[in-house]
Amino acid sequence: MAAPQPSPSGPANARFFVRSGPFDAQTLAQAAGATLQLPKQGQLDGASFSGIAPLQSAGPRDVSFLDNRRYAPLLEQTQAGLVIVASAFAEKVPAHCAALVSSSPYLAWSRVARLFHPLQPAKPGIHPSACVDPTAEIDPSCEIGPFAVIGAGAEIGARSIIGAHTVVGQGVQIAADCRIGNHVTLSHAVLGERVILLPGARIGQDGFGFAVGPDGFESVPQLGRVVIEHDVEIGANTTIDRGSVNDTVIGAGSRLDNLVQIGHNARLGRCCIVVSQAGISGSTVLEDFVTVAAQAGLIGHIRIGAKARIGAQCGVMSDVESGADVIGSPAMPFREFFRNVAVLRKLAKKASGSAQGSSDKA
Amino acid sequence: MAAPQPSPSGPANARFFVRSGPFDAQTLAQAAGATLQLPKQGQLDGASFSGIAPLQSAGPRDVSFLDNRRYAPLLEQTQAGLVIVASAFAEKVPAHCAALVSSSPYLAWSRVARLFHPLQPAKPGIHPSACVDPTAEIDPSCEIGPFAVIGAGAEIGARSIIGAHTVVGQGVQIAADCRIGNHVTLSHAVLGERVILLPGARIGQDGFGFAVGPDGFESVPQLGRVVIEHDVEIGANTTIDRGSVNDTVIGAGSRLDNLVQIGHNARLGRCCIVVSQAGISGSTVLEDFVTVAAQAGLIGHIRIGAKARIGAQCGVMSDVESGADVIGSPAMPFREFFRNVAVLRKLAKKASGSAQGSSDKA
Amino acid sequence: MAAPQPSPSGPANARFFVRSGPFDAQTLAQAAGATLQLPKQGQLDGASFSGIAPLQSAGPRDVSFLDNRRYAPLLEQTQAGLVIVASAFAEKVPAHCAALVSSSPYLAWSRVARLFHPLQPAKPGIHPSACVDPTAEIDPSCEIGPFAVIGAGAEIGARSIIGAHTVVGQGVQIAADCRIGNHVTLSHAVLGERVILLPGARIGQDGFGFAVGPDGFESVPQLGRVVIEHDVEIGANTTIDRGSVNDTVIGAGSRLDNLVQIGHNARLGRCCIVVSQAGISGSTVLEDFVTVAAQAGLIGHIRIGAKARIGAQCGVMSDVESGADVIGSPAMPFREFFRNVAVLRKLAKKASGSAQGSSDKA
Repeated sequence: MAAPQPSPSGPANARFFVRSGPFDAQTLAQAAGATLQLPKQGQLDGASFSGIAPLQSAGPRDVSFLDNRRYAPLLEQTQAGLVIVASAFAEKVPAHCAALVSSSPYLAWSRVARLFHPLQPAKPGIHPSACVDPTAEIDPSCEIGPFAVIGAGAEIGARSIIGAHTVVGQGVQIAADCRIGNHVTLSHAVLGERVILLPGARIGQDGFGFAVGPDGFESVPQLGRVVIEHDVEIGANTTIDRGSVNDTVIGAGSRLDNLVQIGHNARLGRCCIVVSQAGISGSTVLEDFVTVAAQAGLIGHIRIGAKARIGAQCGVMSDVESGADVIGSPAMPFREFFRNVAVLRKLAKKASGSAQGSSDKA
Repeated sequence: MAAPQPSPSGPANARFFVRSGPFDAQTLAQAAGATLQLPKQGQLDGASFSGIAPLQSAGPRDVSFLDNRRYAPLLEQTQAGLVIVASAFAEKVPAHCAALVSSSPYLAWSRVARLFHPLQPAKPGIHPSACVDPTAEIDPSCEIGPFAVIGAGAEIGARSIIGAHTVVGQGVQIAADCRIGNHVTLSHAVLGERVILLPGARIGQDGFGFAVGPDGFESVPQLGRVVIEHDVEIGANTTIDRGSVNDTVIGAGSRLDNLVQIGHNARLGRCCIVVSQAGISGSTVLEDFVTVAAQAGLIGHIRIGAKARIGAQCGVMSDVESGADVIGSPAMPFREFFRNVAVLRKLAKKASGSAQGSSDKA
Repeated sequence: MAAPQPSPSGPANARFFVRSGPFDAQTLAQAAGATLQLPKQGQLDGASFSGIAPLQSAGPRDVSFLDNRRYAPLLEQTQAGLVIVASAFAEKVPAHCAALVSSSPYLAWSRVARLFHPLQPAKPGIHPSACVDPTAEIDPSCEIGPFAVIGAGAEIGARSIIGAHTVVGQGVQIAADCRIGNHVTLSHAVLGERVILLPGARIGQDGFGFAVGPDGFESVPQLGRVVIEHDVEIGANTTIDRGSVNDTVIGAGSRLDNLVQIGHNARLGRCCIVVSQAGISGSTVLEDFVTVAAQAGLIGHIRIGAKARIGAQCGVMSDVESGADVIGSPAMPFREFFRNVAVLRKLAKKASGSAQGSSDKA
């Protein structure tokens, strides 16, 4: 086999992705919630569009989009038949090209891309190799993959998909329209609707709790659960420990990236974002709309106010006020952090300059 | 289904946890190794207790506890029938309420909670779906879960539990009373008694070793093992590479949290603690009772003295003395780190003040 | 069972490793690409060597090696019959001992160790418990492990090994001579030849992309692939997201350690090294021969020049020039970082000294 190469044919390779359509511009405008702007030159007539492509490789039957100002020069040269843009760029669209003008072009793009490449619904049925406890309650519309294990008393709601090799522990409750990936482990957990778990997520295992006994550490029983509310998505190989006494809670609409750690009894509010490799220690509370950037770490038993933003690699050792932007280890306001960096650089240069001077004189 | 909600009914939801008891106060005092203090008002008589609960939701038949000074106000209002407290709080226990007074209230709590909610022993037997090599030696008291794979010559001791989907590689030795979770991968490893591995732990794969050859990197054979001594617990999705020449060793009683990385040939002494997302590079040695906090990183080929404490996010580039407390990247004594933080803040404020001053004058 | 102990018998325990040989010194010299230096005293005659061992435990039929200057004192006392050394140490080899003198002793060692302990080739065949889609194309020389799942249209090249419990998703292409470990998840991916994936690696899942909609976050379709070129090795529990529009690419010969995160659309060039727990955000580009040390984090949409080295725990927020060495968070040149550390320490000491002075006077 020749060495594998990045695809020259653009996104949505047919080996991996289904394709729907074609669609006409009106249909796409409606899906996107955008305003259709006709081409300055020529007409749309019955033109239909068959897929999406980046500005530089799109053709007359492709839909493309511009979201990042940085790529604006590509817009003027695009061969795309239809582009999704913010109103600021509507004038820059080439004359041959129609536009979908949107106040949220990225959202519009997302919806158009989804229209062309819809998520596949559950294929109802339990794979014959799956190991399902007879007391589990599985809606007949569910899809249960090969070698899945469903424990006693587990409940799985309508149209939910359980991936290959996933273990749904005893008593676990999964509501409707969830998509649980391959190789996921679930125990002591309750999931709302439309929850998505990527492969290798570990949900509900023992938290990290032990007491010092006369002969070493003794593990403290972990008697809480993990509660995952509606519309949460959780990344690959992320770990969420169940509570020790109270529950660990992931609030509705929150998004957790890959390799994130959530300690026991932590509580995330609505629509929190936790980027990859960040860690939130036990009993810490995030109010709604908090963002925790990659590799940040929060100690236990603190509270992060609503809409606060924790920067990448930040080390948070105490409460953070609502709306604050912090970074650094220990955490401080963004402004202070960058001021400190600048001042230290200046002092160091001066010190090294005078050291240089001294040694010159010597 | 209604949106899932944190449990209003407190810990140990019956969907997920077995319950033992009820127990009288004497039995609980004995399990806790604590002294029973009768209620100032009323009598215990034959009162029996049926479970555990937090101070704020406990009722007369519940046992609760106070460990954190911060929650002391809740003690005075609790409706619990019995509370576990340190002697400093014995006087604050409400009059209706008995107490178990302990010098180690968290340990006492742990033991009482375990009494009410005992770990389930192995259910002897090999699940019919498991794939067991005929040369493996499995004690008849073991529990082997669905789809487990047990390789040639593997040995599994009495009462050990092997979770669903776990792969025990060729020759791996697991002693008695171990609890290996679901989806664990074990190879080139020897485990002592009472070892606990949480889901997704990867033990014994190739270490990260390669030499630069004429046409790129060449992998160096990794010919050591992983040795996990008695009473070790290892978190979810943690990775421990086998040694390259010598063994990688996790000392007796040590506790590793989730998503920890242990490089090849590393050696941890007795009762070390490694918190989540910390990483220990190859050939580094931790003496006994070392604590490595979350997200800390240790380079290879260094030695950390007994009882040293490495702070969260610390970057350790050289040996650390026994008993030292270090933090920062690069690591330095706690005191120095926080002094540096304070001094830099002061200098930066001054610098920005004078810059402000200058611009005011301009 | 007695407590498990580090092996006193040295590497390559027969429980876990096959052994080949014995070999004579000429054969080993040839494998190593090294020059044979006869013992100063005695002769090699038909001497043959049966294995490898560290300097301190090797015997007359063992091959040992010295790579690290630090262990030079062990060389003079070794009982090994043959040692691999750089020319600088050739004179220090004991009189009884032959030597393989190499300009790359670690590489020479690696090749000799591999000769004694060869990788086991694929045992052709599909385990009867595997679940293979009838449309998958699997070369008859492949080894497919227990409970593996191979999706529709997947292709697996000659002599490749698919571990137990691994899921090869629909359409995934795996070229010849790959070694895919246990518990791996692959989807939307194309792999070159001789690719090695360690247990628990997650390749090709949805990237972390969402737009803000009127009712919360809406996931953006992820329509790219993961392309892994020839000779790449990827560590345990590492996660590589597929591209959103373009592909995520791991360049030929690159080595990724355990628990690494690679975001969507990231592109790594040839022979990059990414050490454990490092994270590379979406759309970031690494040119050839870049090294990213442990726990470093790179934001998205930046470019790291060829041969640049990113230090441990470094936080990279902007482009890095070819050949640069950076460290710190935010990233700066190594030299500047350590100068800053030194200057701050000095200032802090002075400040605390004068504070001390002031308080003395008070």
